Formats: sequence, structure tokens, C-alpha cells
Amino acid sequence: MTAARNRRVVLASRPKGEPTPENFGLDEVEVPEPGPGQMLLRTIYLSLDPYMRWRMNAGASYAAPVEIGDVMEGGTVSEVVASNIPKYKRGDIVLSRTGWQEYGVSDGKEARKIDPAHGPISHALGVLGMPGFTAYAGLLNIGQPKPGETLVVAAASGAVGSVVGQIAGIKGCRVIGIAGGGPKCRYVVEELGFDVCLDHHEPDLSERLKAACPDGIDIYFENVGGPVFESVFPLLNNFARVPVCGLIAWYNDSGPFEGPDRLPSLLQNILVKRLTFRGFIVSDFNAQFPEFLADMSDWLRDGRLKYREDVTEGLENAPRELIALLKGGNFGKKIIRVGPDPTGA
Amino acid sequence: MTAARNRRVVLASRPKGEPTPENFGLDEVEVPEPGPGQMLLRTIYLSLDPYMRWRMNAGASYAAPVEIGDVMEGGTVSEVVASNIPKYKRGDIVLSRTGWQEYGVSDGKEARKIDPAHGPISHALGVLGMPGFTAYAGLLNIGQPKPGETLVVAAASGAVGSVVGQIAGIKGCRVIGIAGGGPKCRYVVEELGFDVCLDHHEPDLSERLKAACPDGIDIYFENVGGPVFESVFPLLNNFARVPVCGLIAWYNDSGPFEGPDRLPSLLQNILVKRLTFRGFIVSDFNAQFPEFLADMSDWLRDGRLKYREDVTEGLENAPRELIALLKGGNFGKKIIRVGPDPTGA
Repeated sequence: MTAARNRRVVLASRPKGEPTPENFGLDEVEVPEPGPGQMLLRTIYLSLDPYMRWRMNAGASYAAPVEIGDVMEGGTVSEVVASNIPKYKRGDIVLSRTGWQEYGVSDGKEARKIDPAHGPISHALGVLGMPGFTAYAGLLNIGQPKPGETLVVAAASGAVGSVVGQIAGIKGCRVIGIAGGGPKCRYVVEELGFDVCLDHHEPDLSERLKAACPDGIDIYFENVGGPVFESVFPLLNNFARVPVCGLIAWYNDSGPFEGPDRLPSLLQNILVKRLTFRGFIVSDFNAQFPEFLADMSDWLRDGRLKYREDVTEGLENAPRELIALLKGGNFGKKIIRVGPDPTGA
Repeated sequence: MTAARNRRVVLASRPKGEPTPENFGLDEVEVPEPGPGQMLLRTIYLSLDPYMRWRMNAGASYAAPVEIGDVMEGGTVSEVVASNIPKYKRGDIVLSRTGWQEYGVSDGKEARKIDPAHGPISHALGVLGMPGFTAYAGLLNIGQPKPGETLVVAAASGAVGSVVGQIAGIKGCRVIGIAGGGPKCRYVVEELGFDVCLDHHEPDLSERLKAACPDGIDIYFENVGGPVFESVFPLLNNFARVPVCGLIAWYNDSGPFEGPDRLPSLLQNILVKRLTFRGFIVSDFNAQFPEFLADMSDWLRDGRLKYREDVTEGLENAPRELIALLKGGNFGKKIIRVGPDPTGA
């Protein structure tokens, strides 16, 4: 590793609306030295996720924003290059959060060892990691699916939506997905087994959704906001549950939004229909992680749950791919392969 | 009862905005004859409640609207005058929903016998009835109060708000009430034992609420909407719970409301702060009614919970009193005494 340089993607400027390539900077620094109690990680896979757009804003969220000049945040699967932590040794594969760079130093507190015997190591960024657990925890704890109920989820071919719909199907729900374009919709129905998938690129989403949900909607797993929310909202049944997990349609726009003001109507509907809206982030349910891993591994092994990755080579392409992801340009869980995978997957 | 006439208040027209006396009509018809399986009830007490405003609108709610020309709906405490139902006999006191009239016929399905030995029979319309149970069920099931948390409730001297705050106090919460005018606020603090009560007739409610809630707000029992909601919303803590029970500020106005549109911001806050908004009506929790009656009777007997009624004589005054109630003109649970109380209370 001597003389090695560390390529990094940093936040160059804060986007106004949709991010552009100019908001990102690619630089090179020396590979850092791990200090006492630290390890040096070489990034193999970097996860791209919609929440990253929000971290590019200055406003407060549940996590601090990325500062200008800082390395973009992100979950990573890496190989241990050198370690001053007894628990980790050279060659171990770990899940960590070293961000958009080729090398990173970790104190191991946010890290977790990955056993390559359990499947492709990149799965720790998706179906067996944060997105999969988000789907599992939000759906089961807040959505509380019951046989015969109708569930709607958008971004249905994506990392979270695809898992939400498949678990709801396992629990006996009628499952309606929403996705962008014919190929994704066909995949969602033919491969993932959703009952219906509606293409939001086509007109009259509200009318088509209404036709697809003759008994209304009991669970809306909210990960997009925007026009999908507006189509779903009038169809919510009494006692419907809405786990609020993401609002990608509004990440680029911090408002104020043009009137009329729909807040009173939202609250009136919550009252009259006795709706539950509850926000969550996956770490709220950390205690359930072992249960999640066990269930999900079973479902994957039995073929009851399918999973698709959309892998792009090269760290330098991460900005372009995040920009595309925010417009639905990915097809499956978006991953950047930053360096060689020693497990050969 | 021969030749007796039945005076009734009917819905004459649907209000636009605030109701006016012209929206109500007072008429007289013959006292109805109870058929097989029915009983004739003489109204002693009529309950006035904010939800009645909503039933005057044509729009769908969780219950059908009152039709033009129909008797206004409402909960009543009555005396059985004649009965063709084995379970009920002449002289029994019953809680029913015969509405704004001196006599009504009931099939007994929505009725419940009241034992005058348990206290004033009018309590069945308030602290031991629908409003008290609304407070109890919404607070305990959705609000989930924990010791040391901060609760805010408006209409704090009213039938629901006064009970919400007192139960929250019993559960160890810091309790902030909001009410209209100095006398109500003093009553809420001095008699009901709230920690603070803010007068919403005074300016700068948001600033005063912020000062009264140095640790933010963990539970907001929503029964008013409007400016109180706007003052509360920025102070909600992570994981705050908002049982949505009423929105009196918006009952007179069905929109559209002037922009900007605050719906995206509400959903963003639900996500970032992991808030729970859940609407309910009291009948959703009917199975808990016996538990409620037992707890509430204990608290009343022990003096841990206090209750105030605001009684007006004469059915003809019900329209005026409902109009006043919707502007906060009552002081305590609003009741109309329609006829003599044979229990002498």
C-alpha cells in the first residue's frame, strides 16, 4: 500500500434544488495512517441512497449535514488493510460508514464484520443491511400488515420498496407497487410477485391507482412524498397506517410550497379516518436487527424474497449515479464498486 | 303525558362558516308513540359538544351529517316514560342519543342505564361519559404519558381538555393547558392542578408556550387545530405523540386554505422527528369503557380529578349555547337542562 493515494469525493457546494456535478469535487490525498484503536479500510462497495441528498442541505435533520469540503457520507463494505483493533485483522470484510473514498479510517464502533459465507458481501448494503432493515422494521412495527389488506409502496424496484412489497406479500397483503417505466414495472410484477405495478411516467396515476385498489389502501409505506402521496391520500381507508420513511420528492425543495395549504385537510383526514402517520429511522429499531437478519436470510434462501443490485464501477461515477438515483435512474439497489472484491463475487 | 307536545330543535340550513341562530329551527310536534321494542324517553339533560358543528356540514365524516329539517343530534340523559323493552321500565334514567328535543323514541341499542347512586346523572354526559372517555382513551392509548414528560392540551377547562390534563398529571407529566381568559386559566391551575395555563386571548402565544416548555413537548393532545397547533408544532420533541381528537378551529371552515402549503413540511417533520399523529374517535376504544369507569370513579372519589359543569336551562337556548361553545364561551362541560331532574340534583 506504500505511496498509495486516496481518491475522495467531497461536497464542493450545496445544491439548490436538484444536485449537479458541480456540487461534488474529486480530490486525492495521502492514505491515512490508522492510530491506536483504529483500523485502515479499503473501500470495495459504496452504497448510494436517497437520504444522501438531504445531508447535502445545511438544515438540521436527524443527522448533521455534510460540511463543504468534507467527504460525502455513505455506508461501505471494505477490506481491513491494517488494524490496531484486536477484534479486526487484515483481510476481514467489514460494513462501515467511511463514505465516498477509496480508503478510510475507522475506530470500529460503527463497523460490523461480514461473513462472506452468508452470500455476496454487497448485500450488507442492501437487502441484509440498512435498506432491508428499514423496510422490515417500518412495515412490521408501524404498517402492521394483516392478511387481505392492501399495501402501496413507491420506488417499488428499489432497495427499500422491493423488500417492503415482498414482505407484505409474505404476510398476505395485496401489494401495489409504483415504479418508473415499463421494464421496472414488469420486473416488480413478474420477478418480485407484486399484484400490480403502476408506471408513474404514464398519465392519470390517481385514476389508475384507484382502479388498482378497489378496497382502498390500508398501508402506505411512504418513501417518496410528492405526487404519489397525493394519489394515495384520498384512497386511505379508515385506520390506515402510514410509516413515513422518506420523502425523496421533496428533498430537492425546501419550500415554501405554493398554496392552498393542505395541512388542515391532512389533519382533518387523520381525525375522520383515524389514520396513523408515524415517522421513523431504522436505528430506532436496532434491537430487532438479529430477528431481521434471521427472517431475511430465511426468505432469501427459500426464494420467497428476491433482490436486485445495480452496480456501477468507479468512485468517480458516484456523483452522476446519485443524481440519477434521485430521478429514479437506478434499477435495483444502487452500489458503486470502488475497488476489487477479494471474495470474487 | 296525554296531549303533550314535543319541542324540537331542527337543522334549518347549513352554516357557511360560523353557525348563526338562523341555521336552527324550533318546532313542536306530537310526542311520538313507542312501537314494539321501543321506549319513549323524556329528555332531562342534553350535551353540547364541538363535534356537532361538523355534523351540520354536508360533507362526509365518520358519521352521516344531520339532514336539513332533522332534529339536531346529541347525547342525552333521559327518564323512561313508557317502555316496550323488557330491560327498561318507567322511571329508569338512561343515557341515549335522542338529540335536541324534549321527547325521543329509542330502541335501546344505543342506550345505557344510569345508576343515580353513583353521582349526578348529568356526569354521564361528561366526565363519566363520552368526553371523559375520549380524554382517557386517547391520552393513554395514543399519548402514552410517561413520568417527566411534557403534555400540552388546549380547551383546558373544557370537558375533554380538563380530564386530559388531570390524568396526565396523575401519570407524572408536566402539564401545560391553554384556555381563553384569566378566570379559566386560574381555574385550570388553581383547581385542576395544571403546572401552567396560557391565555390564548393574550398575544405572543408561541413565545409564551416556548417559555413554558423548556424541555419541548412530548404529547400534544390535539382538540383544536388552528393557531394552537401552529404554536405547538415547532416545539414537538423527537418521538412526540399527537392524538388527534378534534379540530374545532377548522370546523367552521372547509377550505381551501390560503398558502403556502405546509403539508410537505408536516410530513418532513414527522419523518425527521419520528412523530406519531393518530386520529381516533372514542368508540374505537369501546372495549376499555369498564376500565375507564372504574379508574375515573376512583379518581373522582379520591378528589384527584375535578370536574365542572356549565348548565343552561331550556332547550330553546341550545342553539345560542352551541354557537357560544364554538367560540369558547362555555366554562366547563356544557349541558342544557331540558326538563326536570327527578333525582333532584
